This record gives sequence, C-alpha cells and structure tokens, in this order.
Amino acid sequence: MVFSSSLLENAVNEFAKLPGIGKKTALRLVLHLIKQDTAEVAQFSGAIARMREEIKFCSRCHNIADTILCNICSNQSRKQELLCVVENIRDVIAIESTQQFNGIYHVLGGIISPLDGIGPEQLTIDSLVQRVEKEATSEIIFALNANIQGDTTIYYISKKLKSFPVKITTIARGIAFGGELEYADEMTLAKSISNRIPVENYIVSGN
Amino acid sequence: MVFSSSLLENAVNEFAKLPGIGKKTALRLVLHLIKQDTAEVAQFSGAIARMREEIKFCSRCHNIADTILCNICSNQSRKQELLCVVENIRDVIAIESTQQFNGIYHVLGGIISPLDGIGPEQLTIDSLVQRVEKEATSEIIFALNANIQGDTTIYYISKKLKSFPVKITTIARGIAFGGELEYADEMTLAKSISNRIPVENYIVSGN
Repeated sequence: MVFSSSLLENAVNEFAKLPGIGKKTALRLVLHLIKQDTAEVAQFSGAIARMREEIKFCSRCHNIADTILCNICSNQSRKQELLCVVENIRDVIAIESTQQFNGIYHVLGGIISPLDGIGPEQLTIDSLVQRVEKEATSEIIFALNANIQGDTTIYYISKKLKSFPVKITTIARGIAFGGELEYADEMTLAKSISNRIPVENYIVSGN
Repeated sequence: MVFSSSLLENAVNEFAKLPGIGKKTALRLVLHLIKQDTAEVAQFSGAIARMREEIKFCSRCHNIADTILCNICSNQSRKQELLCVVENIRDVIAIESTQQFNGIYHVLGGIISPLDGIGPEQLTIDSLVQRVEKEATSEIIFALNANIQGDTTIYYISKKLKSFPVKITTIARGIAFGGELEYADEMTLAKSISNRIPVENYIVSGN
C-alpha cells in the first residue's frame, strides 16, 4: 500500500498490529476516524491510553480492576465462600453476563498446556491455594473450557487442594440448549449419558 | 456485557464505535492491548490522536497530506498535465499501489447520488473546474466506480468542462483478468463487446 501521508501510514500500521485487523481494514478504520470530530478521536485515543496506564489487576482474584480490589471481590453481598475458577477475564465477563452466579472468582491467567509451554508455575495456582488456606472457601467451581488442557488443569489443582475441606465441582458438560442430538459429537453425547441427572433436579435447576 | 472495570468498559465502548467492530471484537482488541507494553499502547493511541490533529487535505487535489500540498502534487517528476479524477482517498491508494500511473489526482470526496442526498455542490467539482482553468491540463481520466452514480458524475463534470480544450477519458470497463465469460454479468459482457479494442492495442498495453 502506498500512502501520500506519513501520519496516515503510521496510524494504519498501528491499527494493523491488532489481531485480526489487516491493512485494508486498518485503512477503513483510520479513514472513518478522520471523518470524526477531533474531540471524538481524542476521546477514543485517550480512553485506550488511560486504560493501559491506569488499569490494575485485583490482588485477590487477578481480575481486571480499577482499584486494588475488584468490585466483585469487594462486593459484600456476594457469597465470599463460593469460588469460581476461570481461565481468563473474558470468562468472568461471560459468566457475569448470565447474572446467575453470586460468588467470587479466581482468574488463572491461562490453562496448563505443555505444548504451548504453559506450566502450573505461569498460572496463579499458588495464589489460589493461599486463598483457600486463608479464606473460608466452602466450594470451588471449575468453569474451564471442555478440553484436555482444561481437564489437566482441574486434575492438577484438585490434587493440590486435596488436604483442604473444600467441595470441588465443575460446570455441567452436555448437549447445549437448542442443540440437536444427531449433530452432537460422540464424546459429548457419551458423557451426557454417563453423567445423566435425575429429572426432578433438572426441572428445579432448569426453571 | 458486564465489566468489572470502568476503564475497560470505556475502552471497549470506544472501540465498538468503529464501523464493523462489535462488542466482542472490541473486547478482544482491548484485552490484546492490555497485554502489550505501556509504551507500545501509548504509541498506538498517540499515532491515532496525532493523525487526527495534524492531518491536512492537499489544497490542490484534496488528497490526505502532511503539508499544504500532498507529496503527489509536489512531485515534479509526475506529469502535471495528466489528471485522474477519483471518488475518495482509498481509490488514490489503490491506483498508486499499481505503480502504473504517473500523473496527478483530483479527489471528489464522493459521487453524485441524489438518493443519498449528495449533489454536485457537496463535491470538489468547482475546485476541479478551477484547476482545469488554471493548470495546463491536457487529459482528465475518470477512475470512478462502474455504476449509475459514477456515470452520472462523469456526465455532469464532462458537461462542465465542455468549453476547455481537454481530452476526457474513463478507465476501461470489461472482463477482469482471470475472469470467465460465462460468469460475467450481461451488462459488462455487452459493454466489453461494444467497446472492443484492436488486438494490436491490447498486446501493446497488456505487456
């Protein structure tokens, strides 16, 4: 791409560094910004710069926060003894958006995956063990992706927590709502049969 | 989407204002930026802010420029009498990327389209007429999109320039290279037959 302006070129190159944004999309976005008011663009660039400079990670659950403790951890109306372990911040947002979970979180910052060079020491597992030791945690719910890495992580952490009097659960795996049996993969279907639940439980939790 | 940080929420909302970027993509981009160094993010936001504040439009051809005259207009090795009329800046970049055109440009800033409320007075047509009057333009090449709006614009401007001794041409329409006849639309195929060119011309320009 040949540019008549180095200011334009710089802006396009910066946008094109973002994941999933190619040169043509970057140019489209930059030309859109050129059409906006200077104040609006300053608001855009200011929000990004301020976010990166001022954002903190909650010292307790490692979620993104504006202060030392995130507003989920500091919310005393949430069940402080119910701990949901997730891989990353996106998962916290996904679960919070359901408005069905009233406990607190622990963000691992990844998942054990030797092929990607991620071992337990890169994750916040020690911090999780310390929390269970100090806090009166009664139940840990693993909400990890349903794959081998997720299962390995659950297995590893469960072993670490064996000595603590804490109930360890994982979110239900099975056929998704609206999913059709004939299109489900064999693994999911097999697991959903072996982990079948009594209908009375299903109706209580389903409504 | 429920956020645990207002800094994060602001940044996501700003990204989601961009065309074609939804909330989920915005979140992905922001979380990517959080992982980068503060200096890199400052470079990103700085490039955008600076671009919007300092960018100028060439006083002659209305292309994007760093100075009063863009570097295409001020380049004396280009043919100043050969003028290519395009709809927008993206078209300048597309033609410049071919490295086949050695004249200068005139950016209309749009195309005559009464349905979208764009009339000739919103475009830089008067400025184009003044240029042809003042500059020793010998040929104007219209490089506009091949649709009714493009043809209307060509017709309108050609009428305005009738009194000047300037040759007016338009880029060739026809079957694209690699295109197959059976999949071409009837309009294109019909026009490409009626506007057929002698083979000796084709071989000269094609090689």
